[in-house]
Amino acid sequence: MTPRSACAHDPIGIFDSGLGGLTLVKAIRKLLPNENLIYFGDLARLPYGTKSRSQIRAFSVENTAFLVARGIKALVIACNSSASAAGNFVRAHFKHLPIVDVIEPAVQEALATSKSLRIGMIATCATVESGMYEKFLSAGKSKTHVFSKACPLLVPLVEEGMWEDAATDLMIKRYLGPLVEQKIDTLILGCTHYPLLIPALRRFLPKSIHLIDSAAPTARRLEKVLTQKKLRNGAGHKGRLEIYVSDTPRQFTLMGQRFLGEPLNRVTVVRR
Amino acid sequence: MTPRSACAHDPIGIFDSGLGGLTLVKAIRKLLPNENLIYFGDLARLPYGTKSRSQIRAFSVENTAFLVARGIKALVIACNSSASAAGNFVRAHFKHLPIVDVIEPAVQEALATSKSLRIGMIATCATVESGMYEKFLSAGKSKTHVFSKACPLLVPLVEEGMWEDAATDLMIKRYLGPLVEQKIDTLILGCTHYPLLIPALRRFLPKSIHLIDSAAPTARRLEKVLTQKKLRNGAGHKGRLEIYVSDTPRQFTLMGQRFLGEPLNRVTVVRR
Repeated sequence: MTPRSACAHDPIGIFDSGLGGLTLVKAIRKLLPNENLIYFGDLARLPYGTKSRSQIRAFSVENTAFLVARGIKALVIACNSSASAAGNFVRAHFKHLPIVDVIEPAVQEALATSKSLRIGMIATCATVESGMYEKFLSAGKSKTHVFSKACPLLVPLVEEGMWEDAATDLMIKRYLGPLVEQKIDTLILGCTHYPLLIPALRRFLPKSIHLIDSAAPTARRLEKVLTQKKLRNGAGHKGRLEIYVSDTPRQFTLMGQRFLGEPLNRVTVVRR
Repeated sequence: MTPRSACAHDPIGIFDSGLGGLTLVKAIRKLLPNENLIYFGDLARLPYGTKSRSQIRAFSVENTAFLVARGIKALVIACNSSASAAGNFVRAHFKHLPIVDVIEPAVQEALATSKSLRIGMIATCATVESGMYEKFLSAGKSKTHVFSKACPLLVPLVEEGMWEDAATDLMIKRYLGPLVEQKIDTLILGCTHYPLLIPALRRFLPKSIHLIDSAAPTARRLEKVLTQKKLRNGAGHKGRLEIYVSDTPRQFTLMGQRFLGEPLNRVTVVRR
């Protein structure tokens, strides 16, 4: 791909396998209200977290190419499964594009928060199997002990709106019990779906455990990168948000609003 | 598509969103051991049952075209979500292809089994929302009372291998409790994943309730159609089974064997 000069008023592209990445869009809009944003959610092919690394890489490159074709000045990989299985692969394919993902900002936040350096991480199977969180956490502070747990049922439970439910509580207890036993003091939410489970997680976890949601740290990282590259959109009108999805399944509007925190407008369906 | 004359030794095509349709392949191989079979499982884009009708239609036509290009003499739609949301759509696209799906055979079996004509049906959201089971059941016997229940978490629970698990029991109780209260005497398993849950279902349901698995009735329907069209493959060598999948996620081999009842051979990955 031939690079063209990026302009400050060009949009920022953000993609996720589904709508969970809208929690990150919300954080970006709060911190960087003037930026124009283009979001792509691959709802036709979600979930990513149960699929193979090579499949996730293919999907991630395709999603990035879709956003690049719309003239983005920077990319945010909001999907943890994509960031961990395909982050470097996407960077190698789009060398001139500034790319921020959710992993490293969450890792820095966790390392700054944890006192005992006993850090838990919950995510999809693909994210856990990639070992990327362990790698970054250990690279940041070598004495860190990381306790990772794949929680494959949490995404379907969130997608079904079962945020407050005995079945969700049962699965949280099962997934997180072993991490609590390891006396973690910090827990990274390694999936954009999980912030909706914070009240349920809080009920189960000891109060002393800090929860790390990647949304705000990733928005701050994006701000830093844009500033360095002199690509911040100056003060003025409020930035636009355009949403593209590859399918509009039932509960699409409800779930989108829940993640974004406001009604969904400007939604375009692009078939894959 | 220009039709060509089908031959008896041509293969039968079968598709599903995932590996659940291999339970049907197992039944076909038992009843029609000489037939050559080509299976396609769309593992890169599963599940279908949570997606929109138009998306399921697009996927189903694409899967059928893939099998037609491999010279199939007949098609079996093993996926209930495809059969219910896209069965007629696929038939309209491939007018010269004999097509059997899992719905009508299961309906006939249920009507022949039920004495009270109070029939329960559990399936994905897409299947329940299509209303196809209700339509066929009422058309078969007008006095039938149908009690349908979408069970969106059962597929992820099966995919995670949680066939014997307190969380699965909890969801079965929640989904099926209202159907038991309606005094159904027959329950249609409207998803190819559910046969793996029969022991768990049996623990919860009164013994008097008959379970209808579409695999054997669909294999018999296929036999009938092939005989009518003079497309049965004559006695001789054992038929081949070729398996195509669009992804090979973790647990692929384990899950495939569990559904098929024997090791998976001749597996080819085709990217979508």
